[in-house]
Amino acid sequence: MARIALGLSYDGSAWHGWQTQPGGQTIQDQLEAALKVFTTTPVETICAGRTDAGVHAFSQVVHLDTHIERRMESWVRGLNTYLPSSIAVQWAQPVSDDFHARFSATSRTYIYVLRTSRVRCPLTRTRAGWVYSSLDLDAMRDAATRLLGEHDFSSFRSADCQAASPVRDLQQLSIEPSGDFLVFTFKANAFLHHMVRNLMGTLLHVGRGRQPAQWVDTLLALKDRREAAPTFAPNGLYFAGVDYPAHFGLPLLSAHAHFRHHLGFVPAGLA
Amino acid sequence: MARIALGLSYDGSAWHGWQTQPGGQTIQDQLEAALKVFTTTPVETICAGRTDAGVHAFSQVVHLDTHIERRMESWVRGLNTYLPSSIAVQWAQPVSDDFHARFSATSRTYIYVLRTSRVRCPLTRTRAGWVYSSLDLDAMRDAATRLLGEHDFSSFRSADCQAASPVRDLQQLSIEPSGDFLVFTFKANAFLHHMVRNLMGTLLHVGRGRQPAQWVDTLLALKDRREAAPTFAPNGLYFAGVDYPAHFGLPLLSAHAHFRHHLGFVPAGLA
Repeated sequence: MARIALGLSYDGSAWHGWQTQPGGQTIQDQLEAALKVFTTTPVETICAGRTDAGVHAFSQVVHLDTHIERRMESWVRGLNTYLPSSIAVQWAQPVSDDFHARFSATSRTYIYVLRTSRVRCPLTRTRAGWVYSSLDLDAMRDAATRLLGEHDFSSFRSADCQAASPVRDLQQLSIEPSGDFLVFTFKANAFLHHMVRNLMGTLLHVGRGRQPAQWVDTLLALKDRREAAPTFAPNGLYFAGVDYPAHFGLPLLSAHAHFRHHLGFVPAGLA
Repeated sequence: MARIALGLSYDGSAWHGWQTQPGGQTIQDQLEAALKVFTTTPVETICAGRTDAGVHAFSQVVHLDTHIERRMESWVRGLNTYLPSSIAVQWAQPVSDDFHARFSATSRTYIYVLRTSRVRCPLTRTRAGWVYSSLDLDAMRDAATRLLGEHDFSSFRSADCQAASPVRDLQQLSIEPSGDFLVFTFKANAFLHHMVRNLMGTLLHVGRGRQPAQWVDTLLALKDRREAAPTFAPNGLYFAGVDYPAHFGLPLLSAHAHFRHHLGFVPAGLA
């Protein structure tokens, strides 16, 4: 058996999230179906971060074990032949047996693209969240700074979250304007279920002036999901990148390089 | 009766083009259905440029006549309530009776967004055309320059074209790189049916080195659609803007301002 890592991008708006479900309408189901055709055997996959329904990925990382020997370019071309147009393998690479897409990852980065405009935009409706009210960027940045570091994020964790601990280390939370868009970058060692969308809901409450920036201190201390703002829409959320120790030798790009590659721009503050 | 102009944006990938069809799956059908609910009477619409199936619009301009009196903001909000998420009215404005969305227009601008990457991209599959081969930008720009000005564009006109004359004045054809994208801007007094997609097909033949730039001189002289390259995919084509005499007072933005507004970036060469 040899272990192979794949980099995968997808448009999540067409699918019921990453994780396999009986109906087969998930990214994992589609990838494993393509793998079964390509390798002619059932193949199980493990990913770096399980995304929700409607959430996109620039570079999800997946590993699998196989007896099949093919050139890496054949894995990419072959699987893309069998995958639907909303999912594509971007690269394939052999990895050592101790590589694990989930447990070897040292950090994940999510990006939320938010459109702020008076009128809704049909062209970005599945690629960006939308608010029509103007937002107080300074207040949101103040709140973002208060969320940085190691905290118990119970107030931002879905009731369905299966993680053993609610403690996560939020290493980056930047907010950069770009025309009619705001681009939120979240980097942490790992994320709880719905954590980014719950943080977005709370940041937007602050941005709209419904709560002051200090409210997030209260929420962190309360450790109670019911006190925080509602979960925000998945439309603008991208699994943007994942870091692994360099010795695994994966062809990883930064989250913002992926962003530019797939969407054509990065805000000036992130360039 | 009062005449009203509307600015409309849409994601064309969901629809069978602008023009009304028996099945009702066109932009015009959807807009007229929303107008019928909002005004409680049948309303006919005329647009600046009829787009094909799969072609998007940043700012299609439409006019209609109505007895209904509403604040312009109510037209925008009301119609957007009844329109599907892939279509939205961006603005509404009263216009004089001599305004005609099609015949008053002095020029139209289309933008084609082309992705050039080895592997297909799920996130832009309905928003950009795609070629995996590398393209000779200088050769395409040479060909573009040869197409500028007033010509008989019969070689780039669909067999279904109903225009009385094949002569058009191509005022701009620029090609600007932006990361993995090339952005083609076409501005003319008016366009023939499939003209932009046929020009794209021919420019890409030149870009791939299948024909030299001078080939377009030959095609213009031959006036024969069968000699030119196949029609290119609609995925990356945007009806990006339309000009009217200033005295009509419409809230028009430049094609590139629309581009930035809807897609978040414009290439450096166009900024």
